[in-house]
Amino acid sequence: MRICVINPNSSSSVTDHIRHTLEAIKREDTELCVINPEHGPVSIESAYDEALATPPTLELVKWANEEGFDAIVLACFSDPGLDAAKEISDIPVVGIEEATLHMAAMLGHKFSIMTGMRRRIPTREWHVAHRGLESSYASSPALEMSVLEMDSDPVTAKARIMEKARKAVEEDRAEVIILGCAGLAGYSADIERELGVVVLDPTSVAFKVAEAMADLGLHHSKAGRFSYPPKKEIK
Amino acid sequence: MRICVINPNSSSSVTDHIRHTLEAIKREDTELCVINPEHGPVSIESAYDEALATPPTLELVKWANEEGFDAIVLACFSDPGLDAAKEISDIPVVGIEEATLHMAAMLGHKFSIMTGMRRRIPTREWHVAHRGLESSYASSPALEMSVLEMDSDPVTAKARIMEKARKAVEEDRAEVIILGCAGLAGYSADIERELGVVVLDPTSVAFKVAEAMADLGLHHSKAGRFSYPPKKEIK
Amino acid sequence: MRICVINPNSSSSVTDHIRHTLEAIKREDTELCVINPEHGPVSIESAYDEALATPPTLELVKWANEEGFDAIVLACFSDPGLDAAKEISDIPVVGIEEATLHMAAMLGHKFSIMTGMRRRIPTREWHVAHRGLESSYASSPALEMSVLEMDSDPVTAKARIMEKARKAVEEDRAEVIILGCAGLAGYSADIERELGVVVLDPTSVAFKVAEAMADLGLHHSKAGRFSYPPKKEIK
Amino acid sequence: MRICVINPNSSSSVTDHIRHTLEAIKREDTELCVINPEHGPVSIESAYDEALATPPTLELVKWANEEGFDAIVLACFSDPGLDAAKEISDIPVVGIEEATLHMAAMLGHKFSIMTGMRRRIPTREWHVAHRGLESSYASSPALEMSVLEMDSDPVTAKARIMEKARKAVEEDRAEVIILGCAGLAGYSADIERELGVVVLDPTSVAFKVAEAMADLGLHHSKAGRFSYPPKKEIK
Amino acid sequence: MRICVINPNSSSSVTDHIRHTLEAIKREDTELCVINPEHGPVSIESAYDEALATPPTLELVKWANEEGFDAIVLACFSDPGLDAAKEISDIPVVGIEEATLHMAAMLGHKFSIMTGMRRRIPTREWHVAHRGLESSYASSPALEMSVLEMDSDPVTAKARIMEKARKAVEEDRAEVIILGCAGLAGYSADIERELGVVVLDPTSVAFKVAEAMADLGLHHSKAGRFSYPPKKEIK
Amino acid sequence: MRICVINPNSSSSVTDHIRHTLEAIKREDTELCVINPEHGPVSIESAYDEALATPPTLELVKWANEEGFDAIVLACFSDPGLDAAKEISDIPVVGIEEATLHMAAMLGHKFSIMTGMRRRIPTREWHVAHRGLESSYASSPALEMSVLEMDSDPVTAKARIMEKARKAVEEDRAEVIILGCAGLAGYSADIERELGVVVLDPTSVAFKVAEAMADLGLHHSKAGRFSYPPKKEIK
Repeated sequence: MRICVINPNSSSSVTDHIRHTLEAIKREDTELCVINPEHGPVSIESAYDEALATPPTLELVKWANEEGFDAIVLACFSDPGLDAAKEISDIPVVGIEEATLHMAAMLGHKFSIMTGMRRRIPTREWHVAHRGLESSYASSPALEMSVLEMDSDPVTAKARIMEKARKAVEEDRAEVIILGCAGLAGYSADIERELGVVVLDPTSVAFKVAEAMADLGLHHSKAGRFSYPPKKEIK
Repeated sequence: MRICVINPNSSSSVTDHIRHTLEAIKREDTELCVINPEHGPVSIESAYDEALATPPTLELVKWANEEGFDAIVLACFSDPGLDAAKEISDIPVVGIEEATLHMAAMLGHKFSIMTGMRRRIPTREWHVAHRGLESSYASSPALEMSVLEMDSDPVTAKARIMEKARKAVEEDRAEVIILGCAGLAGYSADIERELGVVVLDPTSVAFKVAEAMADLGLHHSKAGRFSYPPKKEIK
Repeated sequence: MRICVINPNSSSSVTDHIRHTLEAIKREDTELCVINPEHGPVSIESAYDEALATPPTLELVKWANEEGFDAIVLACFSDPGLDAAKEISDIPVVGIEEATLHMAAMLGHKFSIMTGMRRRIPTREWHVAHRGLESSYASSPALEMSVLEMDSDPVTAKARIMEKARKAVEEDRAEVIILGCAGLAGYSADIERELGVVVLDPTSVAFKVAEAMADLGLHHSKAGRFSYPPKKEIK
Repeated sequence: MRICVINPNSSSSVTDHIRHTLEAIKREDTELCVINPEHGPVSIESAYDEALATPPTLELVKWANEEGFDAIVLACFSDPGLDAAKEISDIPVVGIEEATLHMAAMLGHKFSIMTGMRRRIPTREWHVAHRGLESSYASSPALEMSVLEMDSDPVTAKARIMEKARKAVEEDRAEVIILGCAGLAGYSADIERELGVVVLDPTSVAFKVAEAMADLGLHHSKAGRFSYPPKKEIK
Repeated sequence: MRICVINPNSSSSVTDHIRHTLEAIKREDTELCVINPEHGPVSIESAYDEALATPPTLELVKWANEEGFDAIVLACFSDPGLDAAKEISDIPVVGIEEATLHMAAMLGHKFSIMTGMRRRIPTREWHVAHRGLESSYASSPALEMSVLEMDSDPVTAKARIMEKARKAVEEDRAEVIILGCAGLAGYSADIERELGVVVLDPTSVAFKVAEAMADLGLHHSKAGRFSYPPKKEIK
Repeated sequence: MRICVINPNSSSSVTDHIRHTLEAIKREDTELCVINPEHGPVSIESAYDEALATPPTLELVKWANEEGFDAIVLACFSDPGLDAAKEISDIPVVGIEEATLHMAAMLGHKFSIMTGMRRRIPTREWHVAHRGLESSYASSPALEMSVLEMDSDPVTAKARIMEKARKAVEEDRAEVIILGCAGLAGYSADIERELGVVVLDPTSVAFKVAEAMADLGLHHSKAGRFSYPPKKEIK
């Protein structure tokens, strides 16, 4: 099985971090490819960043289809361009937010999503609502650190995560904690042990869901929402 | 007052159609500018089209801010790039779908949205749900005509609209009909007369809402979801 | 264009306040008429007050139709009698709560509604829910002042509003503040400057929405919920 | 126990019909009083009718409190003035729609509400939604007969009810049928036998709920939404 | 009228407590039978307890049908086995949670449910959501006492209830307090007096609803969800 | 990895069918055990059947924990006893309905659930609603065949499935079809080819989700809803 993980931002250090995390959990017989677009924003922290990152990401989705991969993982927690990617792809495209929210809903009564900046809490809220999972949602504690800060200062990031997660568990009654940012891949085991709740690393969860989909030969339905885009002139 | 209407597709004939419609309803003292990006898809009928149309559209949003317009109207019914546009803009950005759905909810119990292709019905459904307006939603009758076909064959388009709208009124109990496609601007008066319901032309509605916002000196709140994107390197 | 603004309570000082506010924002060519019923409660702070205020208000709605106005604004934040008014009117009737909730939903992720008395918070909650806007709703901070107290002591009213609004922004993450009481018309500009969020004066918003509807020649759909009441004996 | 049933319309024949129905089901030791206001519309089929019927109905609510009744039933399926009645009453006020919707939700998966005119379907829909019972709601088949027609031609009314109810059961999967109109009191036993579903006569259901509340010494909470209206001048 | 109240746990002291409470409120002509299964858990505080208690409870439901009772009350606040009981019963089966949630929704804007252990709050939340009553729900304050502790130490239980209920009223704006545990039957009158809100004892409420259903000759609809189970081999 | 699949009914032929299906899709290094309780109903088609099947199923859940399996799959589409199983288990318990509904929501806009008997449609509806997935739900076409009939007459079952599924796709706009009954395991590949939509076999989907959870070392959160049941006397 060959899985292509696309980091939609243009930061190769984040890409390397993701690759490192997934190498440790992939099945032995799974071939892993982690890439990012050459162009576009170096991190994704706004709808504007998402908009700019999407076209080059979609080019990589096309490439992964042409190269014969069995599944694609979009490794940014906001799932930028996910619907468009599903339209143009014959193989399953798994958004890490999408897969993780559904997994979290099965593992506990309510989940909290650790997020980078306070300005992104509304995005978390409506993405949860869009999937109908409001009653499984506890809160989105904001770390008030950018993706790059988290990447460059993991000690502070971890401490901040612990403090915010504890509050989510005790006050918001979160039973599952989602690390809502691709840059945080890899912290989950330590944190779970200290807090006594389930902690989900979205990239890992989505990667395993992608393996499961590929095993089952699944793809997105082409009968409606994700049918191929009409052919047309692009000026 | 100066209002910039951006047609996010690259078809100048649609742009001309929009301009023609709005010239007839603008206030005398409102200065109207209708433009489209040079590059991008010639019509928007998929999430993929939306993704490609968004970056050049956002460039025009920046331009309209720099040029000192008082408000912007995004004239494509899927409101592509609306959130990103609000983030980067100091002046109000009015999506024609957004403004029309809210207006329709005030004018009758339920509305139906005439849409081009059956494949876009899911998009209509979740855009309505995203705004919480499910209980005001009757249906999305699909014309099964592309935007360009509607533009090139207005006689067939009108006949099809009438048939579908009648069914929406009688069977789905729609009290308001939304012409859910920028290419249809201008049909509303005739149809309303024949069907006895209120028909909304989204571009016209949004344009008047933009005038109202500008009169009130309103803009999007910069305190959260639509605050300015963090500055960063774009490779 | 001629717009009739009906203050449903019988307090002419509130009516004068509304007139003063709207004179400052109306379009030059709009003719403004602000009136109130002679009979009924002097303020509206309960469902009981609403019930008593509605029949005389509906008489004014009929009068405005007979006099050939182009639109009506109901200037009490609870929109008393709004559905009945739409049934008996040929011209658009704009409730200030209805128009403002929809406008607020377009301008930020969540809004808070400043309200007079704690006892009215449930009314705010179900009016928001009735329109499907729960996910855009942050809170209803209660000023614990009556409409008449706010009218007679504007200094205290403003201070109280500032304190409550600040809490709504910081704790409830409101991005838009609605001044949920006709008696507060006119405070919005000052408050917006101090708090950095968008503040909406419902009477002003609804008035501009009424102008927009009249420009578009819109009226409520007569095809269902707001069709004319059956003729019958009234004993 | 003494229960006051208020028919909010001014038709004494409907009042007599209600009295007849309830005499047959009241507990032996319950004293029954059924009254209607002298003034107001002779039937209630619009929001406008509701608005006019409410003030005289509220006068009767006050009277029933002064007379020492143990509970009040509002015997019109739209529950006109229910919130205001609860505010001004020390004894429980049971709306026949409110009580019946909640009872129906306990007795089957989905209920349908037989209603008089198609124009009232939206009212049924939002009253159901207001109580959160959408997932228990199947449909509102409209008889297209006025209350007075149903009262004057019971044979046609019954035939129409049977036809519409059968469709609700077979196509909309209604398991419970609500006779959504006070004028229909008394048909439930016959119809239930023929259709094999549960049929609820709202006036009867509400009357028994009122007896239950009175037995339990219950009243509406005065701690918030239904607290007494502030005292004030009524011009 | 003969009503069978089934306490689904195997604790006869709880059964006695329930009998004592209901003897005081039953109608003179109602014959009361309160029983519990011989086998199964002595209290019900988990989904596992519910699962074990259900089969022996269903045996008692069958017995009550055979004995010719007019209605059954299931006297455990989680309503274990309620759906199955309705399927196999010809007479109405009233769950004390189900009946009380619907009653509470009629008596105030929001209710809080006093519950035993924090671990049961999620159960309260989804039971409320299952009935569509989220907008009437304030909170579920946890007493952190087991049913048996509450039964053996009523003084502490009452003090704890008062503290938690006061917080629910002042902070969560509960207008109605539900004593969400069969073991608490009997405290409601005292507490209501001290707190100024309505307090519901679920067993009492459900018992009176059962009397009302029996008076009306009601039963669960057998047309769908609660039709008789298909006959089959039980190994 | 060792996965224990529990068929909650007592029919060994269904168990064999499940084993046959899963043998074909399991990873080479996964050890598969498929079992059923000795006692209980031979099929599960009512809440009553679920109630009787649950206690012996929970015994098998305990056994699988003691035997050191890595994950459990509950192979009945109604997920009987799922919450209780999660409480008493240290290893993940995957309900086939739960896993499949979440998977379906990722693969298309709306899904339909093929179900056996019309009487089970309400169960499908509230299980979907319980997970918040109403907006992804198209319909539950009923085959009107029992589990045992489907098992004994696969030709008729397949034909019926095709007819019902086609209607779901064309009229209800289902993009994904779920075979909502363990007895149907194995039909998915053929049907998908003929209908052009994605067809999900719930047992297969849940099995792969269980493998994914085991790979990730996931288990249900023990911090709240699924914490261990309090120890107590079981009479």
